[in-house]
Amino acid sequence: MTDARLTILGLKGIPEVRSGDSIGELIMEALKNEDRSVEDNDIFIVTQKIISKVENRFRRIRDIIASDKAKELAKSLSRDAKHIQLILEESNRSIRAENGIIITETIHGLVCANSGIDQSNVEKGTFSLLPLDPDGSAGRIRREIMKLTGTDVAVIISDTFGRPFREGQTNVAIGVSGLIPLEDYRGRRDKFGNILSSTVIATADELAAAGELVCGKLENIPVALIRGYQYRRGDGSSKELIMPPHKDLFRR
Amino acid sequence: MTDARLTILGLKGIPEVRSGDSIGELIMEALKNEDRSVEDNDIFIVTQKIISKVENRFRRIRDIIASDKAKELAKSLSRDAKHIQLILEESNRSIRAENGIIITETIHGLVCANSGIDQSNVEKGTFSLLPLDPDGSAGRIRREIMKLTGTDVAVIISDTFGRPFREGQTNVAIGVSGLIPLEDYRGRRDKFGNILSSTVIATADELAAAGELVCGKLENIPVALIRGYQYRRGDGSSKELIMPPHKDLFRR
Repeated sequence: MTDARLTILGLKGIPEVRSGDSIGELIMEALKNEDRSVEDNDIFIVTQKIISKVENRFRRIRDIIASDKAKELAKSLSRDAKHIQLILEESNRSIRAENGIIITETIHGLVCANSGIDQSNVEKGTFSLLPLDPDGSAGRIRREIMKLTGTDVAVIISDTFGRPFREGQTNVAIGVSGLIPLEDYRGRRDKFGNILSSTVIATADELAAAGELVCGKLENIPVALIRGYQYRRGDGSSKELIMPPHKDLFRR
Repeated sequence: MTDARLTILGLKGIPEVRSGDSIGELIMEALKNEDRSVEDNDIFIVTQKIISKVENRFRRIRDIIASDKAKELAKSLSRDAKHIQLILEESNRSIRAENGIIITETIHGLVCANSGIDQSNVEKGTFSLLPLDPDGSAGRIRREIMKLTGTDVAVIISDTFGRPFREGQTNVAIGVSGLIPLEDYRGRRDKFGNILSSTVIATADELAAAGELVCGKLENIPVALIRGYQYRRGDGSSKELIMPPHKDLFRR
């Protein structure tokens, strides 16, 4: 399901969004300002932060009351108790909490640092939380674009996660709509006739990572357009990208 | 260090390589056949398998003798004893061995399944091993291209790794030359004046992942060219991408 050429474009000119804005509309306006139009097979990678903003998923620090549990954990980690309070509220459980780091399983089942809650690219004095239903957020943008243009695109909501074993963070797909996020090669044969036994590529994560390359962290480019990738269309869900705990050798 | 547009091209027409071939030359021939030439700032993503082939890093199954230790481990995992033998030979230590899966720290310090040894896209009856010095392999290709064209490019050697918590595999950078693999945003300010406290992006891994999107697993496209990404030049090493064990909450 690959083509030999693809283009990744960072959409400049998307304004600072506000609660209730239509990201689909803003994307279409940004494209129009660059004299481009949407094409069949386009994939839009939308960074989590603007989703959280239009969905009003942030909290003012002054409104947060830290529980005793949060205060205790914060003390042991040398961290801010209000931040820890929010991290616990947005998680099912803690996976690791040591060396000043807290890794949780979020309410969505994602495993990441701080339940995905941070203070970057938001107004001072506020924390941004992950969208409640990132697949739903992706679906809404997809429907908005469909309504405006009649074109069926794919949408990925991306966020920046660390990972075990490797330094640095990469963008991964926390929400998807209109594409199957995994490409399963198992059972197919390579040119030597070997049957591939374990290869399943997380293409949605690779697309999210590719999008990060044009978005950056300081350039105010919250959306990337990937054109030319022959993705597998369908009703995929970001849940398919989450390893079930019983299969996971590192969640225990 | 990002631009708002980049292009990723899968280089078709690279023949099945043999021990001793110059990958730099083969890349330049493939580009020429597409009426393209190399440009300053180009990044070549070269998949591990062709490196292993030109460096003769494979083993015939019939030449492998499984030790008692390998036989025992193979039995407990319901796996092939000769494969386990090689996996142990190419590793410093085992990180997890259960449910039929073995995750090791390779001789390079990489943490991955099977010490990176597999049987895909190689002749039947053989296993391919990771290159001994992937940074060295990347550097050699870079120097070959420099010698042929006078142009200084960046080269990334990529391989397909699974990861905890998430389903599917993605391509990561196991060797680099000519670029700094991490982009450190710590201490920089976003547009709201917040100082970023923890953001370090593994751009080399994101570039490797982006390259996979045009290479695929069955299309015989072993090299991707990424053009338009303003990478940070320098003497980077893939070792920078490996989290030191003492920092790693999941290696124990």
